[in-house]
Amino acid sequence: MYLESTREIHLASRPVGLPTAANFELITVPVRPLQAGEVLIKNLWMSVDPYMRGRMMDRESYVPPYKLQEALEGGAVGEVVESRSETIKVGDLVLHQLGWREHAVAPAASVQKIDARQAPPQAFLGVLGMTGMTAWAGLTRIAELKAGETVFVSAASGAVGAVAVQIAKQMGARVVASVGSDEKAAWLREIGADAVINYRTAGDLTAALRAAAPEGINVYFENVGGAHLEAALNVMKPFGRVIMCGMIEVYNATEPPKGPSNLAQVIGKRIKLQGMIVSDHFGAYPEFLKQVGGWLAAGKIQTRETVREGLDNAPDAFIGLFRGDNTGKMLVKLA
Amino acid sequence: MYLESTREIHLASRPVGLPTAANFELITVPVRPLQAGEVLIKNLWMSVDPYMRGRMMDRESYVPPYKLQEALEGGAVGEVVESRSETIKVGDLVLHQLGWREHAVAPAASVQKIDARQAPPQAFLGVLGMTGMTAWAGLTRIAELKAGETVFVSAASGAVGAVAVQIAKQMGARVVASVGSDEKAAWLREIGADAVINYRTAGDLTAALRAAAPEGINVYFENVGGAHLEAALNVMKPFGRVIMCGMIEVYNATEPPKGPSNLAQVIGKRIKLQGMIVSDHFGAYPEFLKQVGGWLAAGKIQTRETVREGLDNAPDAFIGLFRGDNTGKMLVKLA
Repeated sequence: MYLESTREIHLASRPVGLPTAANFELITVPVRPLQAGEVLIKNLWMSVDPYMRGRMMDRESYVPPYKLQEALEGGAVGEVVESRSETIKVGDLVLHQLGWREHAVAPAASVQKIDARQAPPQAFLGVLGMTGMTAWAGLTRIAELKAGETVFVSAASGAVGAVAVQIAKQMGARVVASVGSDEKAAWLREIGADAVINYRTAGDLTAALRAAAPEGINVYFENVGGAHLEAALNVMKPFGRVIMCGMIEVYNATEPPKGPSNLAQVIGKRIKLQGMIVSDHFGAYPEFLKQVGGWLAAGKIQTRETVREGLDNAPDAFIGLFRGDNTGKMLVKLA
Repeated sequence: MYLESTREIHLASRPVGLPTAANFELITVPVRPLQAGEVLIKNLWMSVDPYMRGRMMDRESYVPPYKLQEALEGGAVGEVVESRSETIKVGDLVLHQLGWREHAVAPAASVQKIDARQAPPQAFLGVLGMTGMTAWAGLTRIAELKAGETVFVSAASGAVGAVAVQIAKQMGARVVASVGSDEKAAWLREIGADAVINYRTAGDLTAALRAAAPEGINVYFENVGGAHLEAALNVMKPFGRVIMCGMIEVYNATEPPKGPSNLAQVIGKRIKLQGMIVSDHFGAYPEFLKQVGGWLAAGKIQTRETVREGLDNAPDAFIGLFRGDNTGKMLVKLA
């Protein structure tokens, strides 16, 4: 047997408002022997993502809620260290959904081999993984972005946002990005945003967006909610599209959040707002990997990572997403 | 010359909040001689519609605002009483956009002949006109309604809503209707609604909708805004569609209205909200007329009209739309 015990993060209690360290517990648990068809994975990297906040609530949704006193789940990449599978061998690098733990036992059929020659393993949690795919599917399949259009991306320095900005540029669009610091703004300019708004210092967001896109916007990549959505609707052109991808501003709300006061503009401007979940688009993964992987290999897409070391720091990495701690993908390095 | 003067309603001042009689003025004006290609129309019926409230504001929109001290405009049907056109003759019944006046001079090319054998002339302002077409285009082209789905229609006793309920039934859907009185509710049951909510007495609208559609709704025909939209999002099934057609609750708002607090549900449920303006769909008018005209002729669609007599009463007919005075189409009979 490869090892007898490992460590994992349990959900100790359901957060109310912004999660705190007390909602999480680091537990040492035994590793059970493999059954036929299973592999033991030593996790190298795990992902923390805003959507996980939703799973911490006890409510019906598109994914079941996390259970109390059980390990959390989420994207991870690791190395297979023990195998009772014919298809996944010791030494293989795999992508799977049993993050938030140092080792995981998983059916071989539930993991996906990754090719470390294409990109570093953690890229499969970011630009070549769920976050990059979200950006790509939102722009190409939900908004059906066309060259020459103007796109507004909120949380543009986040994992999804930063990739969305660069994919939109590759597709021939003009891009206005919104971020929360001047440092992030500088990076967004570096990676090609045509105009950048620091929403914390911009004052009236509608006025700032109108100045950045005097002819209006065609597409809004919604990651934030609140004033960002309201400004986007105000400045949207007829037949505009809103990719409803995330609303990080409302995930920790303890009171019902204020919806946009100007939603009636959707009628006259014939705006389409459409919610998206990346897993609906997994069938297009090969197409995504070819296109975005190609841009990445050609140096046309840049990425940044914000890395926290060690499973102990995973809860704080997650909480940091809501403080804007990350530039690019927030990752936890486990080994 | 057929006549020297006629009467029309001018916009005397722009309403703030609910319009009042003081915002309108009845004026006697000279009728100018026809130029080549023009016709003089004696209006028989004119339409008042909630969308007109938007045109009374001085703001950029999909149609230009009404001008102060000029005649209002809107759908009307009339009889041609003088003609300098080769195509439109004296005696023809025509549909046109110069309502709010007893007589109108119009280029023949801007009017549309109607066939009074198919339906009474005023039907071309209602079920066979813009309002019926709005209901049809919303369900078939925006929501792409399928047989077996459940549709929720707000303002279901209104001109658009009552037709939408019946078209949805003809398309094989289950229909939940919301109305503002028990009398209207009884009529909605008569014309085929499977469940009816009186929103004024129902209390919690989400609970009432959930009781009426325990398995959720697939499509929401939005005519109201506010609590109706919030309830619809709460009860909507994954991949639901919202036809954003009207928001009568907010048209007279003097403060920025409260948007739905639960818009984040759009993401997880992959809901599509799409704004619509009927004029974008006029190319499909022949298809609409064949299908809905066929149902009407076969007695499968019932209509009611709420009729006010005389141009003097047009402003009050219009204001009455916001008090819920009408069951079915609100019309003004001019001659």
